[in-house]
Amino acid sequence: MENRIEIVENILSANDKLANSNRQLLNQNHVLGINLMASPGAGKTSLIEITLSSLPSNLKISVIDGDVATSIDTDRALKAGASQAVQINTGGSCHLDAVMLNRALEQMNLENTDLLLVENVGNLICPASFKLGTHKSILIASVPEGDDKPYKYPGMYQGVDAVVINKIDLLPYIKYDIDYFKRGVEILNPDITFFPVSCYTGEGIDIWIDWLIENIDNFKTSNLN
Amino acid sequence: MENRIEIVENILSANDKLANSNRQLLNQNHVLGINLMASPGAGKTSLIEITLSSLPSNLKISVIDGDVATSIDTDRALKAGASQAVQINTGGSCHLDAVMLNRALEQMNLENTDLLLVENVGNLICPASFKLGTHKSILIASVPEGDDKPYKYPGMYQGVDAVVINKIDLLPYIKYDIDYFKRGVEILNPDITFFPVSCYTGEGIDIWIDWLIENIDNFKTSNLN
Repeated sequence: MENRIEIVENILSANDKLANSNRQLLNQNHVLGINLMASPGAGKTSLIEITLSSLPSNLKISVIDGDVATSIDTDRALKAGASQAVQINTGGSCHLDAVMLNRALEQMNLENTDLLLVENVGNLICPASFKLGTHKSILIASVPEGDDKPYKYPGMYQGVDAVVINKIDLLPYIKYDIDYFKRGVEILNPDITFFPVSCYTGEGIDIWIDWLIENIDNFKTSNLN
Repeated sequence: MENRIEIVENILSANDKLANSNRQLLNQNHVLGINLMASPGAGKTSLIEITLSSLPSNLKISVIDGDVATSIDTDRALKAGASQAVQINTGGSCHLDAVMLNRALEQMNLENTDLLLVENVGNLICPASFKLGTHKSILIASVPEGDDKPYKYPGMYQGVDAVVINKIDLLPYIKYDIDYFKRGVEILNPDITFFPVSCYTGEGIDIWIDWLIENIDNFKTSNLN
């Protein structure tokens, strides 16, 4: 048992070292990296699509999509205006890790990228344990998933920089207590920012986009200093 | 790398052996065991609740709930009429395995149980690899998750005995092609049974309940022979 724990710790520590290298690579190229995490069907790809079509056209955005199978998501990202998109098919693995991200970064032209959106594997458990080296972590929750998710999956909600609450257009049809949901997130992350949005109707997307632009600007300024 | 594969194979083989013991224990006690799998928020607990209140009251139903944290689900199952409910908090693990189920079974009175509903951890990747020893595996999909899930998570859809399509009350408000969804499942499992239901309005639940009763009856008959 002790050996097993040691092996797991070694794997995590090797992952964190490579995550640091990924971070340096992004910094050298002045690319703000954002890790998008969510359960299956919460709307990661839809958020990426609407983000690509809403950000100013002078910004160059690259997308890395992690999935157990298919290239449905990169096809959608390229169609929506990503300047480049790389698919990582993880096979059976339930999360991206720093090695996978590193291999994807090696295939990309980072010099021509302002923002890198990394779509993690649809999963509310595994991705929490594996740092990628991105600068920000965003969790996308969705209204039909239910308001109890931060209580049931605290590991994933802990430590994220912002929470997007997607599919608010369905609020009239679903029993969902948004204050109960927010309290569950705030217990884990006081002062966190929420973005209630609908990728379907576009409601709330402008505030999310403003936040992204502000973060890209802040990153460029601080990274040059 | 070869060593790693060997270790994984050994773990899976040990799991399968214990899954067989679990199966024997259920058979000896004439308990039909059903493994319910789904992504977070698809409606596993809601389906268990409405199933408990819809099945004839002479049937004794036990529930085992797997979750990374909290006992929200067993509280709900007991309130809805489960004769007994055991919570397995998996800590960080993204699936139940045969060892966890075995420990839970040891805490239960199986002699007084007709049906055991096992709520697996909310996850569309990990549970696929770990047999529990139950007789049937059901996947609960939900309309707001999107119609592309069988294509993106084939490992989970492959080999299940039936698929419950939950939250059909939201069909008027969501772009969802139910035929595209079904085709994705049928490629992996020809002749599979679908149960389109709404645990919220109760629509379609009667057909799911009939299927359950028929399976409990068939199991009791074949198990006694």
